[in-house]
Amino acid sequence: MERYLVISTDCHAGLPPGGYREYLDPQYRERFDVEIERQLEMARESRKSMLVEDINREWRRGREQDLTGAWDHDQRIKVLDGDGVAGEVVFCDGITENNSPPFGAGIGLSPVGADRELQWAGARAHNRWLAELCQMAPERRVGVAIVPATWDVDEAIAEVRWARANGLRSVMLPVVWGDHDPYHHPVYDPLWRICQELEVVVNFHSGAAESQHYFGRNWPPAPGGEPPLVGGMGIYVCEAVWVVARPLTFLIWGGVFERFPGLRVAVTEGTTSWVPHYLEHWDERYVDWHVTTKLGDYKSHLSMKPSDYFRRNVRLGTFLARREVVRRHEIGVENMMWGTDYPHPEGTWPQTHEMMTVSFEGVPHEELVAMLGGNAASFYRFDTEKLAPIAARVGPERGAIGD
Amino acid sequence: MERYLVISTDCHAGLPPGGYREYLDPQYRERFDVEIERQLEMARESRKSMLVEDINREWRRGREQDLTGAWDHDQRIKVLDGDGVAGEVVFCDGITENNSPPFGAGIGLSPVGADRELQWAGARAHNRWLAELCQMAPERRVGVAIVPATWDVDEAIAEVRWARANGLRSVMLPVVWGDHDPYHHPVYDPLWRICQELEVVVNFHSGAAESQHYFGRNWPPAPGGEPPLVGGMGIYVCEAVWVVARPLTFLIWGGVFERFPGLRVAVTEGTTSWVPHYLEHWDERYVDWHVTTKLGDYKSHLSMKPSDYFRRNVRLGTFLARREVVRRHEIGVENMMWGTDYPHPEGTWPQTHEMMTVSFEGVPHEELVAMLGGNAASFYRFDTEKLAPIAARVGPERGAIGD
Repeated sequence: MERYLVISTDCHAGLPPGGYREYLDPQYRERFDVEIERQLEMARESRKSMLVEDINREWRRGREQDLTGAWDHDQRIKVLDGDGVAGEVVFCDGITENNSPPFGAGIGLSPVGADRELQWAGARAHNRWLAELCQMAPERRVGVAIVPATWDVDEAIAEVRWARANGLRSVMLPVVWGDHDPYHHPVYDPLWRICQELEVVVNFHSGAAESQHYFGRNWPPAPGGEPPLVGGMGIYVCEAVWVVARPLTFLIWGGVFERFPGLRVAVTEGTTSWVPHYLEHWDERYVDWHVTTKLGDYKSHLSMKPSDYFRRNVRLGTFLARREVVRRHEIGVENMMWGTDYPHPEGTWPQTHEMMTVSFEGVPHEELVAMLGGNAASFYRFDTEKLAPIAARVGPERGAIGD
Repeated sequence: MERYLVISTDCHAGLPPGGYREYLDPQYRERFDVEIERQLEMARESRKSMLVEDINREWRRGREQDLTGAWDHDQRIKVLDGDGVAGEVVFCDGITENNSPPFGAGIGLSPVGADRELQWAGARAHNRWLAELCQMAPERRVGVAIVPATWDVDEAIAEVRWARANGLRSVMLPVVWGDHDPYHHPVYDPLWRICQELEVVVNFHSGAAESQHYFGRNWPPAPGGEPPLVGGMGIYVCEAVWVVARPLTFLIWGGVFERFPGLRVAVTEGTTSWVPHYLEHWDERYVDWHVTTKLGDYKSHLSMKPSDYFRRNVRLGTFLARREVVRRHEIGVENMMWGTDYPHPEGTWPQTHEMMTVSFEGVPHEELVAMLGGNAASFYRFDTEKLAPIAARVGPERGAIGD
């Protein structure tokens, strides 16, 4: 019986509140105790207006044990086996609002309103713990180190080196940069160079956006402040997808992939629906025509058209909805990678098999091999020989999904 | 012989340098003399690095007389007649970089880095002159008053009233808001109310964007400063289209069209290619599903799905390329309005007829009637009876374009 190798390119892990204390450099532990209180307070405030506590509590009921896989190695192996997943790319924020690294170093990573020193401290604490988690099953886990690179590129490079030396083969950079330099600025070139050289995948994961624009000046919510603006959440869920893909416009037009042809960039949990429109739009602007002639030469530093860089250097790691799979040839079968988002409630776990059945109906075998695990294996450099026996034991059966 | 009524929903007019002096309130005239010098200096700096003076000069050669239609009534009538255009919506910035209202009140209207009092003064100077220009041919011209609304809503409302009382039936608002309130904030509700009540069309015109992100900290270019970042212009030409459509996300999700169902908003010179993707994306986020459930209710203030508001309240005024016309049923024939961009070099003038021939090949008569002028006539409330004899004299012949 043949089984598919599934690699989830969007998984999350994080310690329960308080757990990060011992991973922090000692000088930050007192601040951490204050931070824990503040986080709890903010979570309470946030729940009043934004998150629906009932829905989340309901979703978690009966899954308490499985959700401890957010930080527990043995439980995590059991859950992923049960979900048919052999390999995973591991981001921070285990159960979203409950397991975020301290000091704003989580999935909402952003320099806006953050404290540079503390955010770095929080990121390093998570990276240390994550390295331990990944070392417990190095063939199955590619850990994503948090690197708040917009503060300081030298510090970012040092963290990339530390991550690589400690078995983490990927990094997550902020998707927003506030008043800092955007990613086409040459100041980042040494960072791209080291990522290319060490074969470290750069990830942009959906989360941060321009929330102060959506929710108003009292954001994040503070006790006694004004309620968030009506409509803010709708704007957020629409703009977040644009925000996470936005760095690509800067990297491509800035010539980053021209200078670093081996650099690999993943956009994670950002859907794939935008790809056909973006490629068309970028390429139109690249073709010399009437509308842009008066602006002079702005493309001779690029030897290929924008979509060529996208095809070569970029991959998308996310749940693939049926409507996206239907358009896979426009989006690019070779650019699409499945992600379960375990243990987040918006992910496919624990219905991954059912959702694959729906999404992939009629899709040929070779394309399934690519989207379920093949693309991810080569992009993140998984050792497929080591994964093969695991996939042969837990993967979805050929014929049960797809054509 | 039947001829089409053509209304160009994207035209530009502006005085030559120095001309705005007499339209300014007297207390700003000294500052204006300084500003003129600064503008010339900036234009020189800008030309060094960005705009290709040779290309622009070449394009203008032999068209000097026709280009004076940017400010001269008689010449303008002659040029538009010759281009087949009976009616027009008139924005600022006659010949782009040569005829911009003073103090940053032009097509790049933005509160970022601007002086509130001076920008208002520049806007009012242009509005006064534009009202005169439009009164010379009120049946043919809908003038677009400049309203830098993010500074102060009361001042904006007063300007809308002034504009309407002086024959200007449309306003242009900034497409970026910097640190000011975005357009879903209830502070703007009185502005939407007055625009709805006075039947004034709100326009967002492509121009301003987040240029300091694209070109670097030395933007706009100052003598002796660093050169702009490589790739900045490519990023600009891609992001500008997103930036000009971005307010729609805020207006729709903020419930503005729910509260003001008669409010009319045009997105100008922003292409139409993005529409199918945007509508799909907005509507997906509106449908209650798995991915967004944990965020709670964020849509019960909307009685329709986002694309319904778009179809009812929004129109697009721009050059319609062949590739857009081919997708017109996805984009929405009833939402598309032709624009020549006269007298800008990136527009269709003086090849409007030829470009219509290419764009509209095979398009049925009724759809042509809508896209060439019918949609614009009803949206901007042109008096089609008064325009009919002009169209019958200058419009493109039925059969010469389209099916």
